[in-house]
Amino acid sequence: MTGRAPLRPVLYDEGADRVRLLDQRLLPGREEWLALATSGEVAEAIRTLAVRGAPAIGVAAAYALAADARRGADAATLARSAEHLARARPTAVNLAWAVKRISARFGEGAAAVLREAHAIRDEDEAACRRMGALGAALLPPRARVLTHCNAGALATAGYGTALGVIRAAIEAGNPVTVLADETRPFFQGARLTAWELHRDGIPVTLLTDGMAGWLMQRREIDAVVVGADRIARNGDVANKIGTYGLAVLAAHHGIPFYVAAPWSTVDLATPDGAAIPIEERGGDEVTMVAGIRIAPEGVPARYPAFDVTPAALVGAIVTERGVSRPPHPEALAALAR
Amino acid sequence: MTGRAPLRPVLYDEGADRVRLLDQRLLPGREEWLALATSGEVAEAIRTLAVRGAPAIGVAAAYALAADARRGADAATLARSAEHLARARPTAVNLAWAVKRISARFGEGAAAVLREAHAIRDEDEAACRRMGALGAALLPPRARVLTHCNAGALATAGYGTALGVIRAAIEAGNPVTVLADETRPFFQGARLTAWELHRDGIPVTLLTDGMAGWLMQRREIDAVVVGADRIARNGDVANKIGTYGLAVLAAHHGIPFYVAAPWSTVDLATPDGAAIPIEERGGDEVTMVAGIRIAPEGVPARYPAFDVTPAALVGAIVTERGVSRPPHPEALAALAR
Repeated sequence: MTGRAPLRPVLYDEGADRVRLLDQRLLPGREEWLALATSGEVAEAIRTLAVRGAPAIGVAAAYALAADARRGADAATLARSAEHLARARPTAVNLAWAVKRISARFGEGAAAVLREAHAIRDEDEAACRRMGALGAALLPPRARVLTHCNAGALATAGYGTALGVIRAAIEAGNPVTVLADETRPFFQGARLTAWELHRDGIPVTLLTDGMAGWLMQRREIDAVVVGADRIARNGDVANKIGTYGLAVLAAHHGIPFYVAAPWSTVDLATPDGAAIPIEERGGDEVTMVAGIRIAPEGVPARYPAFDVTPAALVGAIVTERGVSRPPHPEALAALAR
Repeated sequence: MTGRAPLRPVLYDEGADRVRLLDQRLLPGREEWLALATSGEVAEAIRTLAVRGAPAIGVAAAYALAADARRGADAATLARSAEHLARARPTAVNLAWAVKRISARFGEGAAAVLREAHAIRDEDEAACRRMGALGAALLPPRARVLTHCNAGALATAGYGTALGVIRAAIEAGNPVTVLADETRPFFQGARLTAWELHRDGIPVTLLTDGMAGWLMQRREIDAVVVGADRIARNGDVANKIGTYGLAVLAAHHGIPFYVAAPWSTVDLATPDGAAIPIEERGGDEVTMVAGIRIAPEGVPARYPAFDVTPAALVGAIVTERGVSRPPHPEALAALAR
């Protein structure tokens, strides 16, 4: 690790009452911060992926409602804004969870709302550090860890879930290295995971999304660690499209497959993966790269943004409450108590 | 099919003695033909992927040597050029095979060399049509067929291997549809497969390389059909990186996985996949997209251009000599006789 300040992608500017977001659409080329005044602007930033990652969009939504409250929005307006924010993206349950938690403070005044938003932020980073310690213990010495998408500081309040496990392993003296799937179509791996690991001096090598199987066959991957957008009561895991394929490949090669996510990602109200809504985004996000059309006009593209990995393929779910090992339905129920 | 002329990406201009190649680096944005005078220029076009696809680079190399011969190159020069061409890319065996076949004609004069090159071209297209008929018979009615990379007219003398199977199915009245992996990093699926199928009015939908698993889990894929760059004597198949992962996913879901390739791709001198040289290309081809850097400076990337799918995962190898079914070592040996 270098001596750089920890990366925290969602902040609240109390002087100006602005939600400050590191614009993740511009990384790694430019490091620009948005300063958003209203929950409507934050909802748009969530929809357009200026901020993404299940825990991070929860924190952003919490701060958005604090900004509205401090600007004097009444209870009815706040309730409407809360509903609007919660609908910005459907799959990550942390968004609805944070909005619900903040909404419970609307009657206590703006200061209480902001206090709750700060608490959500602080608890998320603390959860990441606790997950990091628990997850790091699962990694063999000098493990070469494959990750998908960005489940790092950029996806959380700070430190990261899957990348928190990496950071904690290194802080504990285990020199693990990272293989990062570039994660099409939004390139979260190439743009965000590579950027934040490289920033912190953690060795990372980029892969395209089709390389994992071959590297597993060649015994060049020791473990897979990913984040999650929602974990159902039975342990089924929704995460970035491509995660399920990695889980099948890992099982085929006897390589451990781990999920790291804060307890706020576990949705006890969702019985299993079939009940998780999977966001379908526009095909243009696949056919256009950096403003350039890579496919012929008139050819449609699919973009399911997430997939569901059945609990049976998940070797461990690492949460700040503890580690769930199969059978996950029972293990998660025990952690829920 | 529309009434458009069949697509043939490698031609010989006898008037000017030029090898004409449809520049596949520029598709789908621009349709430009190169007119190359020497085998050195053609070797460079092969290395830089202006022409790619195992059968197509074999045809291009054959015509390159014909151009040299017709320009009066002596036997020693032709032999050196042949060696240079054969080394342009290491994995596809068709390249070395075509060069060897052409080299046997060097003593018979330039006209005989060109005749042999035309024969290689004509036989490859005829082989594709025969493979198409044999492979089409394997597809269920209205099959939704996943393919990877481009194993189409653009990868061959014409018609295509995997896409030849698609064309033949449609010509036989089976309205199959295609799901095309975009195939990072060179986007052969997005740029080439989508382009040539769309050109011929064949329904194609683009996917990123991480989506196949999820669509298989959802029962939205009925078969996988791919080409090959080299098939070992035991039936192990080298093909574009990402193919092996698809084969594992197909097996996990009980979905048939088929390979279509001309007999010139079968290398009886290579006992198994471990003996196939896998080309490692530069990481810059992963980190740069359309001239734009998608990963931070200083982050390395891997680019093994091919992977090896074990014979046990291949449901059928379709060649113009017939269809090899498991156990492939015995079935290929029978076809070889």
